[in-house]
Amino acid sequence: MLATILHAPGEVRVEERDVPKILKPTDAIIRLSATCICGSDLWPYRGLNEVKSPMAMGHEYCGVVVEVGSEVKTVQPGQFVVGSFVISDNTCPHCRFGFHSSCEQREFMTGAQAQYARIPLADGTLLATSQMPTDDLIPSLLAASDVLGTGWYAADAARVQPGSTVVVVGDGAVGLMGVLAAKQMGAARIIAMSRHKSRQDLALDYGATDIVAERGEAGVARVRELTQRIGADAVLECVGTQEAMQTALDCARPGSMIGYVGVPHGVGFDGQKLFFSQRGLLGGPAPVRRFLPLLMDLILDRRINPGKVFDLELPLTEAAEGYRAMDERRAIKTLLRV
Amino acid sequence: MLATILHAPGEVRVEERDVPKILKPTDAIIRLSATCICGSDLWPYRGLNEVKSPMAMGHEYCGVVVEVGSEVKTVQPGQFVVGSFVISDNTCPHCRFGFHSSCEQREFMTGAQAQYARIPLADGTLLATSQMPTDDLIPSLLAASDVLGTGWYAADAARVQPGSTVVVVGDGAVGLMGVLAAKQMGAARIIAMSRHKSRQDLALDYGATDIVAERGEAGVARVRELTQRIGADAVLECVGTQEAMQTALDCARPGSMIGYVGVPHGVGFDGQKLFFSQRGLLGGPAPVRRFLPLLMDLILDRRINPGKVFDLELPLTEAAEGYRAMDERRAIKTLLRV
Repeated sequence: MLATILHAPGEVRVEERDVPKILKPTDAIIRLSATCICGSDLWPYRGLNEVKSPMAMGHEYCGVVVEVGSEVKTVQPGQFVVGSFVISDNTCPHCRFGFHSSCEQREFMTGAQAQYARIPLADGTLLATSQMPTDDLIPSLLAASDVLGTGWYAADAARVQPGSTVVVVGDGAVGLMGVLAAKQMGAARIIAMSRHKSRQDLALDYGATDIVAERGEAGVARVRELTQRIGADAVLECVGTQEAMQTALDCARPGSMIGYVGVPHGVGFDGQKLFFSQRGLLGGPAPVRRFLPLLMDLILDRRINPGKVFDLELPLTEAAEGYRAMDERRAIKTLLRV
Repeated sequence: MLATILHAPGEVRVEERDVPKILKPTDAIIRLSATCICGSDLWPYRGLNEVKSPMAMGHEYCGVVVEVGSEVKTVQPGQFVVGSFVISDNTCPHCRFGFHSSCEQREFMTGAQAQYARIPLADGTLLATSQMPTDDLIPSLLAASDVLGTGWYAADAARVQPGSTVVVVGDGAVGLMGVLAAKQMGAARIIAMSRHKSRQDLALDYGATDIVAERGEAGVARVRELTQRIGADAVLECVGTQEAMQTALDCARPGSMIGYVGVPHGVGFDGQKLFFSQRGLLGGPAPVRRFLPLLMDLILDRRINPGKVFDLELPLTEAAEGYRAMDERRAIKTLLRV
């Protein structure tokens, strides 16, 4: 089969690899319908995370089950499935509390930018549709695997409520999904911070009521003006840099929560400053599995269209170009058809 | 009148001062019934906060109104009042969201360890009882001014729910009030971390179900054992040191909240660690004014007895001994009768 391998920063190749096999009785093998490139894939691609040995890339996936281990009960060959980028058992205490991304058996998916993938803990990770989805729904179902679920978690962690004023920091795919999530949760006002016309347009399409193009202190000043100097009820931090986090903290009102989902790189907090500013924080890898039933229903009912976040579609064989396009910000997010 | 003045670390004197006057039409002057010494008063007393000039100490108070400014509407001379240690207008957006401790007109009370005190923004800060309380209720009503409200906020920020498993880090007066608050909020299990017999006893009296005497890693190990290695649903951090915060983080389960109310001294957070551990944080000076109506009702109905936290009672003239007793941990909290 074909698989996407990162050999060194900037060096992505699609190569022949063995089709994965069932290793444990709880595994499933899927044939991917589509996969995609994540903003977090760019960290090693850009050399900001170390690449010690060739890495089988990809953690977002949907497709058709081809084989299951002897203990798998909830999915079967022939079914179309979507799974979380975090492998979970869906039975441990943390899963039962809805924090599948801290599952006692947590693993992070890898190797999904390929024709086939092995999914550990299939029962706890995958969710099957009742019938085969039409082709046009594939991008949205794929989005549920990570980017949509992650934006959703940011809004959930920030405790967006009906009527909330929400700020979304970051206009990448996750930030745009955060806008969509805030809208679904009933936010009255959604301020998207974005400098790029195509992303601004998509943010507006997903429900943003205001666009702030300024960044840093100027951006904060604009948000404070838009919120009558009160600050937002909920802030979604979807970048992971210190600057973005500072913007998030400064845009939030006292007592509000910042849901942060960009993996922090070089981010720190001073306890006393955080204390006196009285901002709340909850972040982490998204417990996508908690949200999958709802998100897949919304997609299959065509009430949301997260798939529009993919503005570049390529065959898997052209994955390298997909990475380049995202690295150069020519594309928000690249879908790879398998 | 007599007032408690800190001249230098360790040097507390009760001295003659002018009775405060109305300075603004929103002020009230009260004659104190009782006041007390706070754990946070020990920071400058111990020289850990700088003492640049003589400081009029004290921010916890209850007493009888003797004079009000021309704009004060909700309290009048002769009424018994309790007020928050944070001065607030109770009308700004932050107050309306329940975060009076971030009021646009926030001031921190000072000079309350005295016979009389000036309370700015009296309408937004004070709450009167319908009749003069009996003498035995004074300690509990005084506690509502800060220590009880602060423990309550820790439990509120940590989102203690009916059935929650709660850990309280810190067996000072605030921690003990956190135990009381968690019990009132319906926690099923309350694990109090305390090494001192008298404090353990009071924690048990206030509703703790388990005592963990170990500290640091040993304490965390014991909490994990008591919680079947899951961790607590809610943690109240009532100290303010890095060690206490680390204990709080390590005792919490993923997805839980840590309500932290000890003013952080030298506390910092690494963004990436916090992210992957998936712990939530909300702290700050307690918005006591939000809780005052409920807390005063509970006290006047004798459903709670927070006043028991005062294990030393002295006349105001002996304030210096009150400081010494708390500094040497001979007393949990000192009440000063005025």
